[in-house]
Amino acid sequence: MKIQQTIKQNHLGLLFQQGSFGIEKESQRVHADGSIVTTEHPTVFGNRSYHPYIQTDFAESQMELITPPQKNLEDSLRWLSAIHQVVLRSIPEDEYLFPLSMPAGLPPEDKIQVAQLDNPEDVAYREHLVKSYGKNKQMVSGIHYNFQLDPEFIQALFKLQDKEQSAVRFQNDLYLKMAKNFLRYQWVLLYLLAATPTVQDNYFKQGNPLKAGQYVRSLRSSQYGYVNAPEIKVSFDSIEQYVESLEHWVNSGKLIAEKEFYSNVRLRGAKKARELLNNGIQYLEFRLFDLNPFDQYGITLSDAKFIHYFVLLMIWLDETVDQNGVELGKARLAEVALENPLAPTQYRQEGEALLHQQFAMLEEIHAPQEIRDIVQQKLQQFADPALTLGGRLVQAIEKAGDYQRLGAKLAQQYKANAFERFYALEAFDNMELSTQALLFDLIQKGIKTEILDEQDQFLCLQVGDHIEYVKNGNMTSKDSYISPLIMENKVVTKKVLHKAGFNVPQSMEFTSAEQAVANYGLFEGRAVVIKPKSTNYGLGITIFQQGVSNREDFAKAIEIAFREDKEVMVEDYLTGTEYRFFVLGEETLAVLLRVPANVVGDGKHSIAELVAAKNDHPLRGDGSRTPLKKIALGDIEKLQLKEQGLTVDSIPDAGRIVQLRANSNISTGGDSIDMTDEMHPSYKALAVGITKAMGAAVCGVDLIIPDLHKPAEPSLQSWGVIEANFNPMMMMHIFPYSGKSRRLTLDVIKMLFPELPH
Amino acid sequence: MKIQQTIKQNHLGLLFQQGSFGIEKESQRVHADGSIVTTEHPTVFGNRSYHPYIQTDFAESQMELITPPQKNLEDSLRWLSAIHQVVLRSIPEDEYLFPLSMPAGLPPEDKIQVAQLDNPEDVAYREHLVKSYGKNKQMVSGIHYNFQLDPEFIQALFKLQDKEQSAVRFQNDLYLKMAKNFLRYQWVLLYLLAATPTVQDNYFKQGNPLKAGQYVRSLRSSQYGYVNAPEIKVSFDSIEQYVESLEHWVNSGKLIAEKEFYSNVRLRGAKKARELLNNGIQYLEFRLFDLNPFDQYGITLSDAKFIHYFVLLMIWLDETVDQNGVELGKARLAEVALENPLAPTQYRQEGEALLHQQFAMLEEIHAPQEIRDIVQQKLQQFADPALTLGGRLVQAIEKAGDYQRLGAKLAQQYKANAFERFYALEAFDNMELSTQALLFDLIQKGIKTEILDEQDQFLCLQVGDHIEYVKNGNMTSKDSYISPLIMENKVVTKKVLHKAGFNVPQSMEFTSAEQAVANYGLFEGRAVVIKPKSTNYGLGITIFQQGVSNREDFAKAIEIAFREDKEVMVEDYLTGTEYRFFVLGEETLAVLLRVPANVVGDGKHSIAELVAAKNDHPLRGDGSRTPLKKIALGDIEKLQLKEQGLTVDSIPDAGRIVQLRANSNISTGGDSIDMTDEMHPSYKALAVGITKAMGAAVCGVDLIIPDLHKPAEPSLQSWGVIEANFNPMMMMHIFPYSGKSRRLTLDVIKMLFPELPH
Repeated sequence: MKIQQTIKQNHLGLLFQQGSFGIEKESQRVHADGSIVTTEHPTVFGNRSYHPYIQTDFAESQMELITPPQKNLEDSLRWLSAIHQVVLRSIPEDEYLFPLSMPAGLPPEDKIQVAQLDNPEDVAYREHLVKSYGKNKQMVSGIHYNFQLDPEFIQALFKLQDKEQSAVRFQNDLYLKMAKNFLRYQWVLLYLLAATPTVQDNYFKQGNPLKAGQYVRSLRSSQYGYVNAPEIKVSFDSIEQYVESLEHWVNSGKLIAEKEFYSNVRLRGAKKARELLNNGIQYLEFRLFDLNPFDQYGITLSDAKFIHYFVLLMIWLDETVDQNGVELGKARLAEVALENPLAPTQYRQEGEALLHQQFAMLEEIHAPQEIRDIVQQKLQQFADPALTLGGRLVQAIEKAGDYQRLGAKLAQQYKANAFERFYALEAFDNMELSTQALLFDLIQKGIKTEILDEQDQFLCLQVGDHIEYVKNGNMTSKDSYISPLIMENKVVTKKVLHKAGFNVPQSMEFTSAEQAVANYGLFEGRAVVIKPKSTNYGLGITIFQQGVSNREDFAKAIEIAFREDKEVMVEDYLTGTEYRFFVLGEETLAVLLRVPANVVGDGKHSIAELVAAKNDHPLRGDGSRTPLKKIALGDIEKLQLKEQGLTVDSIPDAGRIVQLRANSNISTGGDSIDMTDEMHPSYKALAVGITKAMGAAVCGVDLIIPDLHKPAEPSLQSWGVIEANFNPMMMMHIFPYSGKSRRLTLDVIKMLFPELPH
Repeated sequence: MKIQQTIKQNHLGLLFQQGSFGIEKESQRVHADGSIVTTEHPTVFGNRSYHPYIQTDFAESQMELITPPQKNLEDSLRWLSAIHQVVLRSIPEDEYLFPLSMPAGLPPEDKIQVAQLDNPEDVAYREHLVKSYGKNKQMVSGIHYNFQLDPEFIQALFKLQDKEQSAVRFQNDLYLKMAKNFLRYQWVLLYLLAATPTVQDNYFKQGNPLKAGQYVRSLRSSQYGYVNAPEIKVSFDSIEQYVESLEHWVNSGKLIAEKEFYSNVRLRGAKKARELLNNGIQYLEFRLFDLNPFDQYGITLSDAKFIHYFVLLMIWLDETVDQNGVELGKARLAEVALENPLAPTQYRQEGEALLHQQFAMLEEIHAPQEIRDIVQQKLQQFADPALTLGGRLVQAIEKAGDYQRLGAKLAQQYKANAFERFYALEAFDNMELSTQALLFDLIQKGIKTEILDEQDQFLCLQVGDHIEYVKNGNMTSKDSYISPLIMENKVVTKKVLHKAGFNVPQSMEFTSAEQAVANYGLFEGRAVVIKPKSTNYGLGITIFQQGVSNREDFAKAIEIAFREDKEVMVEDYLTGTEYRFFVLGEETLAVLLRVPANVVGDGKHSIAELVAAKNDHPLRGDGSRTPLKKIALGDIEKLQLKEQGLTVDSIPDAGRIVQLRANSNISTGGDSIDMTDEMHPSYKALAVGITKAMGAAVCGVDLIIPDLHKPAEPSLQSWGVIEANFNPMMMMHIFPYSGKSRRLTLDVIKMLFPELPH
């Protein structure tokens, strides 16, 4: 089949460019100086037997970060970023991720702990590797790049030919073409992207083969890296030959298992190679890539895209190399690996020719301009080796003194970056902070997560066969549908809570003063607040805190309220402080006090200065991309100051609390203070009861309580419930302004997956 | 305590007028001729052991309709109306409710079947009554009127005095005052509202005591009614004396139980009178009232209001009569009962004086004008006895020939009324029809129901301790919260269904023709519809029913679509008919076909005439107060006709179907056709599976199916799901235009209360 013609004539260019991507990135955990740690894989990452994102590779210290399959590389890199942020914020304070492939500060071999996996086979395999290759070689890290062509593309191609009758064989041949051509031309990628020019002496058992000050392009892809013995040759000429030759090496005992065959291309889609005969190759894994230390996640988006179009080129080429071509490619790779990274490669001409072919392909398939620009840059790197990744790295190592020092500096910088907005998961910053927090925990604990709708905060979680959906952080299947419907309706909520025996303030609305006063008898002796239905800055409000004791005062208050509105409400008045109880299932997990925006005077600074200083708090920002909001100094705040005889330039006395808002909302600069441990347990039990009465699994209950230390009593004087909220905010509890953080997202996961160990 | 002064000075007038009301109304089930039936209580009304609304009184034929307690009489009468409509539509087609208190066409005594109650005590009691009074007297029907003062009013009064230290005693004394004064002045109500002037001869065992053509005011309240032996005197002087004297008669065997004491006032709030000493009287039951045959529910709202203010007057009066006064009142009642209804009463002066006192009270407590007008009318009836209910009834009986004939005529008329809008529950017509249908079933089956919010269609249902909430007819606790959230989001719905393996049409959106055509490869060979994102009258739509076969056609269709909108969609096209599957739990309960508004020609009438005739269908109306909507003849319909070369004046050939709309919505005049029995079970099973995948308990699934008789196959050619809806419409299934009705509201009840027998 003339593939280029087929694609062009049938306008398959776009389909050709679609596919699925996955990235696996290994990294050593290191000390601040870049030397490898000897601690165990942190338990905070849950169980490695099913963790889809965070694994260990060869050693306990060698983490493997795995992105789930994505339809575009932008999303793959977002996941890679998110997994990095989770890892960097979860490993011990004094540990870092080493950004270079070659390990530094290797511990003595007996201190290198092989990964402690549950499966005995996995452990046995690693022990075999130790014997065959030694531990040090296994400590080298890299990136594996998984790519699947769009199945619709393969199907379309299959339909457009009639030579091959079997769809599976057709698919296998297509992927084998990609694999063989890749192995033939992989040296080009190595030239451009290699980043393992040197390593410390103790890496070598038989002494450093490099001269002092000598750099190469890639130790990792050279004979000194983690490669099979030269005699291990596996044929890619057909899938049958591949399977047979691979099985031959395993049966002869030269390989302990098929996976010990370290080809830079792996055929994926089955546990055993033989299954590929029937199942077909599903995708390819390219294992050539060194970590790019200049990118905090080990690979840049543009390099990832370049690799994508490079492997497409392997399909696009008219030729399909045979096994001889494969061996030629491997030999060329070995040669280029040991070239001087600052010198031109001996195969420059072939490399440039290939990139020109890539250029022609991009033209034909209408690839985005962005990709052409990237290929253009790569072409320049053939002319100037100093621009290659290896070339740049050698210069940076020279400048830093040695590669361990360079790696340590970058590792520290990357870890600091991950803490800059420690409450967010930056790659998913277009979602709510609470969903970001939940995603953080899901990644940390290893729960398979699919983002169904970013804008709508809709996630699909899966553990084994157990699927759960989550919207907006805590809306789940655990709540019944009627609960939010009840809570949405304030009248119904009051009726239900009242019926269930909870203290609910009652209120009545009046449309005339006469009618209100005629009802005086209903309110006599009760603590009530009389207010216009729509309140503005508290105008027209009268509070009878000790109870209304005479009709004249009541009538006067009604009259004042009617000056502000055509409707007036008389409500039970609750004295006390409002607290938010976050209830999940049988437990009040958090209690929060919200304090109106304020500053505390120091006798030196003006209110404007105090506000500016308070606004420097790392949690304060716009209030949507940050857990807390900066205090504004707008009209409302200035009016509030004026009522206290102050302006923004006033300098309040030391210790004086200056309130800048009447309302306590976090969204207007209020402070959130965790009071979970201070609150008397009787109120926590009430909040759980109220949640049950609402039929809810997750509920934010607002109680007014005069004294949080005294046990709750049955009367409205002791406490009253003013609201029950579904989908209650979590961020204010997770990141309060002061007091203990309550990681509620973990409790949501626990609720959804009780079968998991917690 | 000077009660009038206390109320005035403390402005308790409004509180005084508040209270709680309940009405119990007995009615005989009769044949079309007004004679009493001998059939059993219909099983459709469920179990009498707990039914709160529909009971039997003495005999199987004697229904008792009971309204739940309400805070105002308007609501009491709405419930009374609703219960009547349920009863009248549920009893056998040839049975009616007799609107008069005195029975007509009494069967021989051995054919009168005593109510078949579960409780043996209840049966024994009735058997005793048969022995003591004979069956006929027990067949007399009436209205019992329950009234409770606002507890806050009693509490306020109690606080304003210091003579009585016990709140319970205070409350008992207040209700006793009301009871005693009522017994003293009850004859006034009798004069105004009595409606049992005559009865058939066979009612009497010892011959008719009335002369031929003689009418009295109230046989029911006379010695010929259902009253205790004259020696049974129970003291109302104090609660202790009441309890002791009542217990005396029971202990002496003159009464079989306390409830055999047929006072026109009963002290309520305890099972045994003695408990009232500690519990206090909670409310009074007034049993004086004959059925008003001129009102289809037995009592008018204005009479109910008059009675309310009459019993308030009994509290308002300065005096409290003693037992002598009670006996005087009873004697006067007996006298007035046997007066000629068309002659003035001998006690006119006392009656008018009392109503003048009532007038004065209304003034003092600022009662609504409406009440004063009612009292004014009653005053006139003292001057003109012909205006009293009894007076009017006698005239009507004379006109009809006899009271049975009058009763039969009215009974038929009232039953016809109840069927006028048989799909609605008129008293609750401000709620959705589906909620009305549910309320109908709840009343019929005897499930305690509270309307929490009418506007919001929020009900609270209770069976024993089991409480369930329902909103909009089928939104309940059985659905999980996440289900509607999934269904609300079309993108997420598609992903979830696709993942679960259901046939979901895929769609893609494009913002440029170039981009769309570049994707041609994705659609080749697939049946697709290409359309502008916002469609107007189907402009710009191209359908490739056999699959797109070449790029040029595809590009042309894309170009046409882009003429209409800036965004164009390419969607899998499903050939077939759309059916709505209503799924509840494990079962598809109904399948509906919706057909666009249409008429069928007859070769004689114009389209306008055919539409008018079709619109006469009883189910058609505005579409919100009726299950179906009238076909409009607006611009859209006229355009639709024009496309077929027709106008509203065209006369289509006999049998020709003329479509008036492109869309099949019921809300634009479409027909709903039940197809439940026709649909192949495989599709019903699919709809259940889709519902499960949505995590829903109740779901409306829209499937496109080319052949409903063929079993479902896995491909999109065989069927596809296009939508899943939470809170699916029920009325179109309950009242389809053609085909079988599916009473889904009963299934909702069954789902909520599986413990009930169904």
